[in-house]
Formats: sequence, C-alpha cells, structure tokens
Amino acid sequence: MSDATTGTMISCLDKGFVRLVDVMGDDAAIVQAARVSYGSGTKKVHEDRGLIRYLMRHLHTTPFEMVEFKFHIKLPIFVARQWIRHRTANVNEYSGRYSEMKDEFYVPSLDQVRAQSTSNKQGRADEAFPVEESRRIVDMMTATQEHAYAEYQELLSMDLAREVARINLPVSNYTEWYWKIDLHNLFHFLRLRIDAHAQYEIRVFAQAMADLIRPYVPLAYEAFEDYILKSERFSRLELQALDALLASREVTADELAAVGLKGREAAEFLEKLEAIKTAS
Amino acid sequence: MSDATTGTMISCLDKGFVRLVDVMGDDAAIVQAARVSYGSGTKKVHEDRGLIRYLMRHLHTTPFEMVEFKFHIKLPIFVARQWIRHRTANVNEYSGRYSEMKDEFYVPSLDQVRAQSTSNKQGRADEAFPVEESRRIVDMMTATQEHAYAEYQELLSMDLAREVARINLPVSNYTEWYWKIDLHNLFHFLRLRIDAHAQYEIRVFAQAMADLIRPYVPLAYEAFEDYILKSERFSRLELQALDALLASREVTADELAAVGLKGREAAEFLEKLEAIKTAS
Amino acid sequence: MSDATTGTMISCLDKGFVRLVDVMGDDAAIVQAARVSYGSGTKKVHEDRGLIRYLMRHLHTTPFEMVEFKFHIKLPIFVARQWIRHRTANVNEYSGRYSEMKDEFYVPSLDQVRAQSTSNKQGRADEAFPVEESRRIVDMMTATQEHAYAEYQELLSMDLAREVARINLPVSNYTEWYWKIDLHNLFHFLRLRIDAHAQYEIRVFAQAMADLIRPYVPLAYEAFEDYILKSERFSRLELQALDALLASREVTADELAAVGLKGREAAEFLEKLEAIKTAS
Amino acid sequence: MSDATTGTMISCLDKGFVRLVDVMGDDAAIVQAARVSYGSGTKKVHEDRGLIRYLMRHLHTTPFEMVEFKFHIKLPIFVARQWIRHRTANVNEYSGRYSEMKDEFYVPSLDQVRAQSTSNKQGRADEAFPVEESRRIVDMMTATQEHAYAEYQELLSMDLAREVARINLPVSNYTEWYWKIDLHNLFHFLRLRIDAHAQYEIRVFAQAMADLIRPYVPLAYEAFEDYILKSERFSRLELQALDALLASREVTADELAAVGLKGREAAEFLEKLEAIKTAS
Repeated sequence: MSDATTGTMISCLDKGFVRLVDVMGDDAAIVQAARVSYGSGTKKVHEDRGLIRYLMRHLHTTPFEMVEFKFHIKLPIFVARQWIRHRTANVNEYSGRYSEMKDEFYVPSLDQVRAQSTSNKQGRADEAFPVEESRRIVDMMTATQEHAYAEYQELLSMDLAREVARINLPVSNYTEWYWKIDLHNLFHFLRLRIDAHAQYEIRVFAQAMADLIRPYVPLAYEAFEDYILKSERFSRLELQALDALLASREVTADELAAVGLKGREAAEFLEKLEAIKTAS
Repeated sequence: MSDATTGTMISCLDKGFVRLVDVMGDDAAIVQAARVSYGSGTKKVHEDRGLIRYLMRHLHTTPFEMVEFKFHIKLPIFVARQWIRHRTANVNEYSGRYSEMKDEFYVPSLDQVRAQSTSNKQGRADEAFPVEESRRIVDMMTATQEHAYAEYQELLSMDLAREVARINLPVSNYTEWYWKIDLHNLFHFLRLRIDAHAQYEIRVFAQAMADLIRPYVPLAYEAFEDYILKSERFSRLELQALDALLASREVTADELAAVGLKGREAAEFLEKLEAIKTAS
Repeated sequence: MSDATTGTMISCLDKGFVRLVDVMGDDAAIVQAARVSYGSGTKKVHEDRGLIRYLMRHLHTTPFEMVEFKFHIKLPIFVARQWIRHRTANVNEYSGRYSEMKDEFYVPSLDQVRAQSTSNKQGRADEAFPVEESRRIVDMMTATQEHAYAEYQELLSMDLAREVARINLPVSNYTEWYWKIDLHNLFHFLRLRIDAHAQYEIRVFAQAMADLIRPYVPLAYEAFEDYILKSERFSRLELQALDALLASREVTADELAAVGLKGREAAEFLEKLEAIKTAS
Repeated sequence: MSDATTGTMISCLDKGFVRLVDVMGDDAAIVQAARVSYGSGTKKVHEDRGLIRYLMRHLHTTPFEMVEFKFHIKLPIFVARQWIRHRTANVNEYSGRYSEMKDEFYVPSLDQVRAQSTSNKQGRADEAFPVEESRRIVDMMTATQEHAYAEYQELLSMDLAREVARINLPVSNYTEWYWKIDLHNLFHFLRLRIDAHAQYEIRVFAQAMADLIRPYVPLAYEAFEDYILKSERFSRLELQALDALLASREVTADELAAVGLKGREAAEFLEKLEAIKTAS
C-alpha cells in the first residue's frame, strides 16, 4: 500500500500530527492466521466476526500480530519519552546529532493549563486555571522556548557541535519519527494511553491512531472496545462483593438478551457468575 | 545466589522436573524500583504491600520486571513447543544435533487418558477412560516409544548423523533447558498456563514454578492471585448486565468490609460500579 | 498487497513450502525512514543505494525494521523447533490440540542420508552413504512414520483426546505456520540459517525466503550480501596476524579499484588497515 | 546478591553515576547453560575459557543471556533518549509526573566544548574550542539552565500540574533509572556505545558499566574484546582486496604463533584466508 493511498493525517496538539503511512493486513488477515492455528474445525462454527471476538475474549492474541501499521508522527519530546517505553515497536527518530532541531515547541492550549490534581498524584485537575492566569503561564513558557531556541541558534553559529548545542532545548521541542507496530501491541499501547490516567498530551496521539486504524480492522477494533477498552476487571475480593450483592438474584436469559448478551457470550457470563459463587 | 542454596526441585509428570537455579531480587526489589519511578511522594502513603498491590492493580508492570528467575527444566518436546511460544525469556535447550537424545518419554498416567472434550475444542474430557482401556492405550504408546528409540539407536550405530537420526523420535521424548525470565513475564506465562484451558501437561510445570517462586515474592504473588489469577474481566455488555442486575441496589461500606474490601480498594470498587451505571 | 499478487511459493524439501503472503515496504521505505533520522543533510550526499549500503555497513539497523514480510510455511516439526528460537517474529502455528495432524512426514532424500561429521560436532558428513544403505535407512524411517500415524489414527478412532493422541508423532511430522518478521530481523535469521553450520533442512527454507524477498529489496539484499553474508570478521589476534603478513606492503588506490573498492569504501578500508597497524 | 555487596558506583560526567545493584550469574553460569545445549561431548574437549571463546566466536549467544545485571543510573535526559533505544532491557525511570525534577543539569567540561566535526556528520571535532570561548559557552548554558529551573519552580509554586510545568526543562536535566539487562544484550549495547561514533556523553556511561561488570565475567569480557570490540569486519570487496595484497604469501604456523594464534584459532584463520582465495 503506497503512501499516496494511505496518507491520511490527523493533527495533534498545536503542531504535531499522526500520519498513517502503510498498512499490512486487515480483519481478514487476522482470520486467515487464526484458521491456520485452529484449523478447519473452526470454519463452520464461526463467522469471521464471531471468530475475531472469540480470539480477543480468550486472549488468543497472536493472530492480531499479523496486522502491521506504520505511522509518521510529529510529537513533543516529553511525549516521545513516554511513548518509547513501549518496546515492541520499530522506530526511526529524527536525530539532533545529524540535523538541526526545528523551531517548534509545544505550548499548551489555555484550557490545559491546570493545577496539580488533588486525587491523582500523576495528573492535572479537571478544571483549567482562570484564563488570565493560564495566559500568563503560556506567555512565560513561550518566552522561555524562544530564549532556548535563540541560544541554540547562537551556539550553532559559533560552530558548536550540534550534539552539544541541543542539550538545553526543552522537552517541549517537537521531534519526528516513523513508528511501526503490530495490531496486538498497538491495542496494548492504546489501552494504556487512551486511558484517563495517561497524560493528556499522549492521549491525543493515541486517539488519533485509533481513529486512523479503525477503518482497516473494524471487527477487531469493535472487539477491542467491547472486551478490553470498555471492560472492567474485578479482583478476587470484588468478585466476592459482587456475589454478595447479587446473592439471591435469579438471572434470566431475557434479562441478558435485553442488554445484548446472547448465545455463547450469555453462557460465558452465567459461567462467570457461577464461578464467583463457587469461589466465595 | 548459588545453585547450592536454591536447588529446590519439583518433579513434574512421570520423568520431568522444574528446578529453581538462581534468583535476582524479591518483593523489596520491586518496591526499590517503583520508588525510583514514583518518587518520595509515595513513601509515606504506602507500605510495601500496599505499593505492590497498587502496582499490580493499575498495570504498572515494569517494577515486576526487576526480579529475575532462572530454572532448569526437563520436559516433553510437545510441552516445550507450547512453552517456547512465550518469547520474552532466555533459553538454552539440549541439542539433538550435538548430543544423543535420551531414552526417556512421557507416558500419560492412566487417569489422564481421556476422550476428546465435547465442550472444548482444544481439550480433553473431565473423566478418564475405563482403566483397562487406558492401560491398553498406554501400553500401545509405550511400545511405539520403545520401537522409535530402538530404531534411533540402530541408526546411530550405523553412524547416521545425529541430526538426521533423531527426526523420527516422537514429541513425547524428554528434552531439557535452562529458562530465565523476569517476574512480570513469568506472571503472564503463569496466567495463561495455569489456566484450565491450557493442556494438563504444561499446567503441571506452571504450577511447579509458581510454587517455587512464591516464597521469594510472597507479596507480589498474593497481588497476582488477587488481581489477575482469581480476578474476572467483564465485557462492555456484561457490565451492562451487571448494572441491570444490581439496579436498585444500595451498596454499604459494611457490606464491602464483610468481604474484606476496605479503604482505597473499596472506593475503587464503588467507582467501578458508578462507571458501569454511567456507561449503561 | 493482496495474496493474489504475492502468492509466490517455493517448494522446500519433500513436502514443505515457503509462500510469501504479504509485504510492507521496499528499498524506498528503508530510505524514507533513514532520511527522517539522518535528516536533510544526507539528501545530497547519498543516492539511495549509497545510503542503504552506508546503513548496513555501520550497523544502523533500524531503517531495515521498517520493511515487513509475512510468510506461510509448511515445515517439519524439528525444523520448526530450530526456527522458533528466533523470538523477534510473529507466529501462528497449526495446532494439534484443535485439529488433526496430517499424514505428512519428512523423508530425507537419499543424498542427505549421511554419516556424522568428523569435523563438526553438530553436522553431517559431506558425502552420502552408499545408495543401497541410504535406501535401507529411508525405508526404515518411512515404515516407522507409517506405524506412528496408523497408531495416531487408531487412538483418534477410540476418541482419545487429540492433544494426547498426538504425543507419539515424530518430529519429522509436517506442521504449518504464518510467520511475520521485519527485514532487519530476517537478515539476522538468514545470516545464521543460510550458514553452512545450520542444519541442511532449515537452510533450504532460509534460502527460499531469501529468494522470495530479494526482488522487493534488491539494494538492501545486495548490501546484506556484501557486508554481512559474504564478509568475514577477524579477531584481535587475527588482525595482528594480517598486519604481520601485510607488514611492508604499500597499498595503492589502483590495487583497490581493481577489486571494486573506490571512494568512501576504499578510504574506510585503508583506515582499517591503519587501525590494525596502530593496535598491533 | 545484596546491595551491600555490590554497591560499587562509578561517577559519570559532572553529576551522574552508574551503580551496579545486583548480579545473577558469572562465567560459570554461561558454561553451565552451554553444557546443557552442547551436551557432555563438549566436556572433555573444552576448558571453560575455551568454551566461552568458542561460543562468542561462533555467535552462540544464548548462554550469555543467562547472566543478568541490574544498574542504578543517573544520567542526562538526552543520554537517556539514546540509551532507551535499546529495547531488550527492563527500565524503571524517575517520573516528572509523580515527583519534582531536581535542580541538576549536565554542563559539559571545557574540553568537551568542541566544533562540529568536519568528517563525521553526527559528531564533534577532536579538539576543544579555545578555553575562553569554551568558558563563555558553558556560562551561557548554565545561565539558561538556571533560568529554566527557576521558571519551573515558579510554575510549581503557582500549583501548575507537575506534568505540565516540566515541559520546558531542557534535555540536559538529570534523570535516574533502574536498568536491568542480560549479558548478551549488554555486550551489544557496549559494542555500539563504547564505539568512537557514539556521543561522548553516553560512551562515559558505557565504559563505566563495562568496568563494573568485567570482574564478574572476566572470561566472557575477554572474549567480547577479542572477537567483537577489537575485531574488524571486512566486506566482500575488502576480502578481495586483502586476497590481492596477500596474493603470493605463504603463511607459516610460526608467523601465526608469533602473534598468539595457535591451535583451533590458527586453523580457523587459515580457513578464512583459504575461503577468501576461493571466493575471489
């Protein structure tokens, strides 16, 4: 698939972007690989959607590794530092040793200038500062970025080596990279980085990638949302609490059908409730 | 830590074993690494147990990677083939090219000679065959193994290259390897391989490893059991079903305390129930 | 890229094959990724071929990770066991738990029935056995495979669980998988498995993959051959020996040009010779 | 092995350090793992040193993965950004979201304030600037760091969220992490980062790690130096050039012994020369 056909780009933050550069595979490629594992026996039982949902639900993750996406991304260095912690991807980043860093820095929008969260050690409050205060902060930040870049330029003009001159550029400076990852590992990335606990600035990029890839793997993405992104894990003790709360409750097929739980999935749900009861 | 002090070995199946050869780190090493990430702010709030449980609950998995275990394992080839799919480990396996394979084959115990499961495409039934039938099957299998090994010996005596002579040895033949893995990835292995859907023969090894490492990381293992192994994930639809079932239900702190849910964990549970309500 | 356009298949051994299923990227994709790293400064200096060769020569391996290949492969289990040791790939293998193993076994061709090598602990001799002896060995092997498969069928007909019935199938039994890998890691695989020390049976597959991918990345493959596959590493002591052997020797540009060493590469060669001299 | 016994620390740059926190295994652990692969046949032939050198020479890298090192490192962010590209390690880094970044910045020593290299696009010149110019540059840099940190403090005092306030801190700011890696992958890291093409500031850390681990694996480190670090690879064309230069040269065992090449290694060297001749 050529650049020309997949050059869809989504702007992120004030100067960044995610561009989908290349794609290998789709929902059919997941099914193709799964059928080699699970053999012809599975052919009759499942339709593709059912098979993909079954794979996702039961942590049969390897078929999702058969789809690969390549992105071109422009992002602030502090976002790149969080991002690179995901080790199961291929990366080629712009190098400040080979090339001059550009005069582009992330400046938060006024509504993202917020106090330290009181409930979340790692996050910011839900409300922005008063707009004049936000503006003052943003102006301070911008001035510092301008100063840092002016000094960088001055050092380069003195012929200081690029690899030394760049060390005082702030982590708000934009960088670029090509980033390539398979769908299973991308889902893992999205799960952690779309999450409300992730820093706002990386969430924006994660959401953009989700939006770009969904059209290529609509069934897999739907399964990812249903079984991972919008699912909830209950601990051993929480399951006991649920069991206590549901204690005398009879569950009917109609009740489950009312929320869309039918067939195999309804049966699996009843098994879970039964298992909770037994364990409690 | 030397072989001498950690040479604990657990027999597995008829001729296999797991031996814990070396250990780096313990619960304290997890805490040590987490504190560098989360800084001094965390020191007062959490005790070690609380911190470890928090890390496990919120998928902060990197501190668990700071503990490393090395095992010496003897296992049938068909188990090794399932095992090796876990790629995040270091392996040195006995080589049938360099050395002569040994006359040791896995023979199922009579109670593991079972019919194909009717409910589980990949598994066996809950009940064994009648004992005479099981015995007959086991005798057939043993004879085939003896024949294969006798032929192997004959081929070697003709000076056929080892790497060729061994190709008709069955996958029940035992092999050996050193296998080294960090605790986070071991937990992932155990989660998949202690599970009832894993083949019985690999479950035996997974359980042995769990038993060997638990004394070194009792707090981490407890958290793994509470939040992963004995937890349950509910899908988007299942959460809607739970919400419907719990609809009019008021939940009191006393009810939660009765099953052991207190403080931060009780609050998180109530947040989950609230989130379900909002999403439904 | 669809199956239809890339369905090229090469037969391997007696019943196996390698089929190239999908491709992401080509030589241009390597250059594209490298340019983001090394910036516009590189644009004028290098042509694409020069850049790719420079990357390969100087171990700048990440741009080669930007190309991805997916194969469908049918191979004997003992080959699969060597192959799977390469952990940086994605795999979906046929499962003997879900599906019935097929009646297909690897039988060596007569000229591959050879004695243990006297010089190479892990390999076979350069010469085949006398043809009658080879034929006798092949007949023995075939009979054992037929016996094993007949017993497998008998056990299945008794309704023994597939996951148990298959344990006496020999490692010459064929399996199948989808296997997906990036070009950098494929080169690493090929380097080890095209090598004369690799077992003949896996070399056949490695060569087939090399033949299938070369047309997609002709420049990268040429560089891989020149700088890796057909290169030679000399140890510290060997360099001293070379220096002693070359001691009084003047090297002229014409001599180097005579074998094709020109420009930057000739300069790098002279630097190496100089470095040897200094170190000795 | 406890912190107490391995707390050796080496200072790096102006405010950084490498501290060896924990060690699993040593030369004997490499031999132990290799013997399981290569079997008892190897026992008589090789002594431990010979076996380790054989493994290194022939790219049998997995036994080196059986040794693991854990470091505590304090390093500038721009060094951390190069370092983290090595994906085969475990990392826990200090978090500017959870904790306040410290007032510690890397300031180059005067002799590292150098011009852009004219021969090396990514590096700096061999000579420092005149000392007054270096001092002026260092003073400029220090002032910018002080300004950035003062603004950071001011933003924190306004209660701006830590994760936002830190975005204008320069990449010269120090961070810390725990970093754990196996010996094979550490050798790969060292090979790339001790190299003269690596940035000076990361070379300092690589050398410190090499110095800290060498006492634990003296034989493996010696082999790494002889066969990797101080070896040289010659390309296909360079081998042809060597062959032309050596053309009429007879090589005697005495000549090889004179530089220390004896026995198996001398034989392998002669084989290489012979192979070159054949290929040319």
